[in-house]
Amino acid sequence: MAAIITLLTDFGDADGFVGAMRGVLKSRAPATQLVDLAHHVPRGDVRKASRVLARAAVCFPRGAVHLVVVDPGVGSARRPLVMSVGGHLFVAPDNGVLDGVSAALGGAEETRHITHPALFAATVSATFHGRDVFAPTAGALAAGFAFPDVGALVRDRVRLAETPVTETAEGWIGEVVEIDQYGNLITNLDAGDVGPRVEVRVHGSALTGPSSSYSAVDVGAAVLVVGSTGTLEIAVRDGSAAHRFGVALGDEVACSPVVEAPQSAP
Amino acid sequence: MAAIITLLTDFGDADGFVGAMRGVLKSRAPATQLVDLAHHVPRGDVRKASRVLARAAVCFPRGAVHLVVVDPGVGSARRPLVMSVGGHLFVAPDNGVLDGVSAALGGAEETRHITHPALFAATVSATFHGRDVFAPTAGALAAGFAFPDVGALVRDRVRLAETPVTETAEGWIGEVVEIDQYGNLITNLDAGDVGPRVEVRVHGSALTGPSSSYSAVDVGAAVLVVGSTGTLEIAVRDGSAAHRFGVALGDEVACSPVVEAPQSAP
Amino acid sequence: MAAIITLLTDFGDADGFVGAMRGVLKSRAPATQLVDLAHHVPRGDVRKASRVLARAAVCFPRGAVHLVVVDPGVGSARRPLVMSVGGHLFVAPDNGVLDGVSAALGGAEETRHITHPALFAATVSATFHGRDVFAPTAGALAAGFAFPDVGALVRDRVRLAETPVTETAEGWIGEVVEIDQYGNLITNLDAGDVGPRVEVRVHGSALTGPSSSYSAVDVGAAVLVVGSTGTLEIAVRDGSAAHRFGVALGDEVACSPVVEAPQSAP
Repeated sequence: MAAIITLLTDFGDADGFVGAMRGVLKSRAPATQLVDLAHHVPRGDVRKASRVLARAAVCFPRGAVHLVVVDPGVGSARRPLVMSVGGHLFVAPDNGVLDGVSAALGGAEETRHITHPALFAATVSATFHGRDVFAPTAGALAAGFAFPDVGALVRDRVRLAETPVTETAEGWIGEVVEIDQYGNLITNLDAGDVGPRVEVRVHGSALTGPSSSYSAVDVGAAVLVVGSTGTLEIAVRDGSAAHRFGVALGDEVACSPVVEAPQSAP
Repeated sequence: MAAIITLLTDFGDADGFVGAMRGVLKSRAPATQLVDLAHHVPRGDVRKASRVLARAAVCFPRGAVHLVVVDPGVGSARRPLVMSVGGHLFVAPDNGVLDGVSAALGGAEETRHITHPALFAATVSATFHGRDVFAPTAGALAAGFAFPDVGALVRDRVRLAETPVTETAEGWIGEVVEIDQYGNLITNLDAGDVGPRVEVRVHGSALTGPSSSYSAVDVGAAVLVVGSTGTLEIAVRDGSAAHRFGVALGDEVACSPVVEAPQSAP
Repeated sequence: MAAIITLLTDFGDADGFVGAMRGVLKSRAPATQLVDLAHHVPRGDVRKASRVLARAAVCFPRGAVHLVVVDPGVGSARRPLVMSVGGHLFVAPDNGVLDGVSAALGGAEETRHITHPALFAATVSATFHGRDVFAPTAGALAAGFAFPDVGALVRDRVRLAETPVTETAEGWIGEVVEIDQYGNLITNLDAGDVGPRVEVRVHGSALTGPSSSYSAVDVGAAVLVVGSTGTLEIAVRDGSAAHRFGVALGDEVACSPVVEAPQSAP
């Protein structure tokens, strides 16, 4: 079976930057299948890209090479990396974008600094390492270049700062860690940890749930559900919870258990 | 030849939801070619998705599997379906999104309710049946899963309400059934039915035609043409007819034949 | 190895027009790999499309077929063309969109007018030659249709008007030839021609450089760099230079050499 290379960038679809990278990949690894993860990640949003990568890459079969170019530090001294984890390879800048998928796939990771000269374009531009460094490396790996030859081991890759969920007397304090295109508010509160019925408070509004689906409420009403990766999510049916509640990324979300009053005997 | 799976969603390109589905498809059907129809259908717009599917799917060779996830009812009781028509298979929620392509391909359709346990992810989330139900089913079908084993026959799939063209003393009353990204107004008035020369009226403006192409008029002028699926279409050259005429989806379009005055003999 | 067909359009991703073309390509050339260059080129912007094509197509291996449908003249008398240059084939309308890639690949080009009846759909619409002319032709070529059989040689294809860089007493006068999605201002001033250190003036602001990368300045500051195709580029780190300087496409950019004062001896 032909190898798979996935692509994740913040390059959009107007300028041909992703197209150029695809050309490099097909030149370096002609038999490879190219599969897109996303290309409209907000510009330079490493945290969002980390979450998108974790969400999508875990669905691919082992052996895939994932090429990630969300790289606000292009041209600076930030290192280009290849990480091996869970049978997948990830080619990305050293800026924390691999945090999410490393946690999601679990297991030991091994990371190397891309320095082998065969992994660079003949001329490396100051502004487009996606084309000149990352795509050549991903293509070479898909075509059989040996991971240990990439470069020296890296043991101190950059990590994203993360606010952990804190436990309080009343429950837990988490935060909105992602807002998707629909305006759904994805929290870091794991549904399995907080119990079967909770009240969630954000910006002075309270919601009880989780409900079984977005459709459990009327169109335009807010609803608390368990999102697709198992954390609590606040949505407005056919609307935007981000607009409704005026919530931004990183805003606090408080959560406390709801104890149902026991039903009286008949 | 490797099987083809097409993808049509309203997921956009920022969150990695389509990327996750592609991963499931490559896991279930590694040899399959993935081909996109569109991913920026307006959120939850089943009617638009039905038209996009009809426009694009008919261009594919027989044997293709088409995966459609425009699914405002995700998590509710709406049924997941597989429809067989014209040598194609369609995997989609039961919300009318298959109406257009069923009419376009014609012939007998056979539709089944997805219930076979092999067609679901190990855990099915409340919010992402694209990943957990529809993609696994499409992947399985592309990899050889037998259509009759999908589940029981469905004879009452949901249909979109449709306003038919009505005939009047002066001609026909139709409506704007789609507005494309250019602001072109696509009507349900079949050019073959209304004759070679007509006047069309929308929001108090009148146009005579159809002209041979958008370029038959000056830049900025309105023009009536026969669109790519054979119905009358109102455009503004290099502009937006939707803005020019203040027209929304479903707005009435009146049409009457123009009888050319016979030319006097020389 | 399966042939490659790339796609470049201004069709966006909402209406299924690209999806329809992909279906035609898979019908005509089932074994071909489809690879996207870009689909959100601004509507009808032939000049931008020419630059995107030049940027991306050169990265592909020889033998690729490139399908370009940015075609404001659809349905008019503008000719559909196939151009052969540098071992690549380009299928496009005759509107200058091939100028950039012809210059970038260099060498002799040979261009033919698509007239062979096998290269058209059974019915050709007035509004969608991407589906009815260009995709059938690209698919046929990828499947082995002989280039000389496409149609008669064309020696007068349409060219885009171009303002050359002019040399003045103080240096050079060029212009902004492209603004990318980030608002970076790409000029036609070749970094190799203007020397190692220059001052650039645009709309009354002056910048000295080029710097080694976007990251050479603080977030929010303007920076002059050498862009990915070797010309001077004005950027704002993590911001938009187009907004900062109020610059539009075609605006003048003046450039003069900076002579560093010799350091006095210690």
